[in-house]
Amino acid sequence: MTKEFFKVTDLNKVLEYRRIFSKVTAEDVDISETTGRILAKDIISDTDLPDFMRTTMDGYAISASSSYGATEANPGWLTIKGAIAMGDIPSFRIGPGESARIATGGMLPQGADSVMMIEHTEPVDEHSVEIYKSIAPGQHVIDIGEDFRKGEILLCCGQRIRAQETGLLAAFGKQNVLVYRKPKIAIISTGDEVVPIDHTPGLGKIRDINTYTLAGLVKEAGGIPHSYGIIPDVYDALYQSCRQAVEASDMVLISGGSSVGVRDLTIDVLASLPDAKILVHGISISPGKPTILAKVGNCAFWGLPGHVVSAMVVFSVVVKPFIEHICGLAVSREVKIPAILTRNIASVHGRTDYVRVRLLEKDGKLCAEPILGKSGLINTMVKADGLIEIDMNTEGLYQGAEVWVIPV
Amino acid sequence: MTKEFFKVTDLNKVLEYRRIFSKVTAEDVDISETTGRILAKDIISDTDLPDFMRTTMDGYAISASSSYGATEANPGWLTIKGAIAMGDIPSFRIGPGESARIATGGMLPQGADSVMMIEHTEPVDEHSVEIYKSIAPGQHVIDIGEDFRKGEILLCCGQRIRAQETGLLAAFGKQNVLVYRKPKIAIISTGDEVVPIDHTPGLGKIRDINTYTLAGLVKEAGGIPHSYGIIPDVYDALYQSCRQAVEASDMVLISGGSSVGVRDLTIDVLASLPDAKILVHGISISPGKPTILAKVGNCAFWGLPGHVVSAMVVFSVVVKPFIEHICGLAVSREVKIPAILTRNIASVHGRTDYVRVRLLEKDGKLCAEPILGKSGLINTMVKADGLIEIDMNTEGLYQGAEVWVIPV
Repeated sequence: MTKEFFKVTDLNKVLEYRRIFSKVTAEDVDISETTGRILAKDIISDTDLPDFMRTTMDGYAISASSSYGATEANPGWLTIKGAIAMGDIPSFRIGPGESARIATGGMLPQGADSVMMIEHTEPVDEHSVEIYKSIAPGQHVIDIGEDFRKGEILLCCGQRIRAQETGLLAAFGKQNVLVYRKPKIAIISTGDEVVPIDHTPGLGKIRDINTYTLAGLVKEAGGIPHSYGIIPDVYDALYQSCRQAVEASDMVLISGGSSVGVRDLTIDVLASLPDAKILVHGISISPGKPTILAKVGNCAFWGLPGHVVSAMVVFSVVVKPFIEHICGLAVSREVKIPAILTRNIASVHGRTDYVRVRLLEKDGKLCAEPILGKSGLINTMVKADGLIEIDMNTEGLYQGAEVWVIPV
Repeated sequence: MTKEFFKVTDLNKVLEYRRIFSKVTAEDVDISETTGRILAKDIISDTDLPDFMRTTMDGYAISASSSYGATEANPGWLTIKGAIAMGDIPSFRIGPGESARIATGGMLPQGADSVMMIEHTEPVDEHSVEIYKSIAPGQHVIDIGEDFRKGEILLCCGQRIRAQETGLLAAFGKQNVLVYRKPKIAIISTGDEVVPIDHTPGLGKIRDINTYTLAGLVKEAGGIPHSYGIIPDVYDALYQSCRQAVEASDMVLISGGSSVGVRDLTIDVLASLPDAKILVHGISISPGKPTILAKVGNCAFWGLPGHVVSAMVVFSVVVKPFIEHICGLAVSREVKIPAILTRNIASVHGRTDYVRVRLLEKDGKLCAEPILGKSGLINTMVKADGLIEIDMNTEGLYQGAEVWVIPV
């Protein structure tokens, strides 16, 4: 005779709600600020890269055919027609049996199609050089457009910019780059037992862990956290803060209300906010079941569990994908890490379980070691490197199973 | 008859030079700024966490022995002695056959050692409740000090602070936290063929890709990049910039000089800086062989290859560990990702090769697919998710081999 407190929604169904929230707007930023941001438009190549034939080695620019047959035992002999200064356009052309001194990065003269590395040469005098190797056309050079062709899509809208993408933007002279704005994410703590961190909590009270943990997670996910502090478990106070938060933010995270009373209060407040619709009241995951999702205007409004570990799991599994969606992220490069489970773990059929694990190398294999301890203990999350997901149709996993670890 | 241009140093030998550079100083930051930073002292617990017995569920606080024998068929019956408000110290104690209403997070009254979940109860009237389950002492409660004990080391000096560590700092009221300063890292580009990115490069010239790529990498590694722009390949100009950079920074990265001429110039400049010692002139890795490392005062001074791909590989494999060292990072949680190689790759004996790979899932396995294309092409780095290392004593790897991927 158990009570149904709320009807849980399947995890995938919750994730599908992402689509009903629109992306944040875009803004121009200086290229030096782009690493880590998400591109808000495709970047098209307006030129071949490189737009001249370029050497990747120090040596002699030649026509490869001039080297055919040359070996250490039977060196070839070429005249040196000149030297090419870095960044200059060669003023002469190379014919058969001719060469030009060239330094890495230099432009090949007309008639040259390859570069003989200096290591395979020996100067005879100022005007001639012996060569000890045959090379093929294209050797040690980058051809015109070999890196990128004019008109090609260099980078796609929705792509996260890493250092190499920033480099590519530089190569094409993109001083200003259109990226999605970082979403503003409001964080509200509730709970009459929660005190600010600079207070010494009396017996029965606890410091406000969630505000700081969630702010850290929001930053890591590319958002800008804005804390509204600890709001008492009182309708008017909570309503005021929620309304302010919704108006000023792209998303709201309220945490602390895992007791039925506070959850009911949160629901009451949410239901009375203008243009609000409660989408989810409970998710079929553990930990993290008592999670609320509402749409208030275009703002995703989350009621997260009060336990920090549960709140972190929900953040990692559900909230983060929503943040990435409104951030415009279309192509994620984040990978789950394959590892071998070090011990059996039991799980309950009918819900998706998340187990904290530590990663360690053992006999040349990456292993995932489940962390023991109640889910309410912060120390389990501090020890953890990641989470493994146990499917709702699985009743547990055996030692030695191959698992995928979600880094935390 | 090949020439030895420089005597290469073994990669491990290069990494050992880290020890001769001292760490940056520490600074106090507000807890809200700690995520991503590195702790500069151990954090010791000054109290038990929690310091009271706390419930993790809504229900009834009881002495577990009062529930023994209760089942759905044969319910137990308990009197309700009162309700415990959140954050309050219970004013009464629980005896055998008694219970108290309690909400998640609440403090257990004296005499209670466990919580009966509300789902396994049915109220009879205002003063009594039926219970349908036997529970054990400690069930659904967190005991005093169960998360952390007073006097325990919570976090270690040299540990990177993630969101959960920030949460832990909050739990113990650490409003200000001593972390290592972010190192200032100077970036100098050289090369007469390099033009600023807002210029249209004439034929034979190329935009300054390296400054922006390296700045992105420095940020990702936790440093503060400071760009000195493009310095002409002229002794006086380069000397001035290097000297300024050394004085103002914790590390200097100079890039662009892969031609022998420019490398010689860099060496000349380095040799004449006050208190300078050249430690490495060439590393046994590919790409990235023509790398210079000097110690100038306490500043690690790097001469990186001019090709951006080579510079990125050197950064990832060598420079980043140095940055982490001077940042005080003692315990790294970064893992290499195990994957299956999708094709054979050849390698040269006697040097450590780094091959760019793309990660993809195939038949439930994470696979590493080598990216084809010359090492001078930026597009190979843009396509890549990581690098795999081929040991200097290995002449290649076969399709199906288990490899470790270093994320880039």
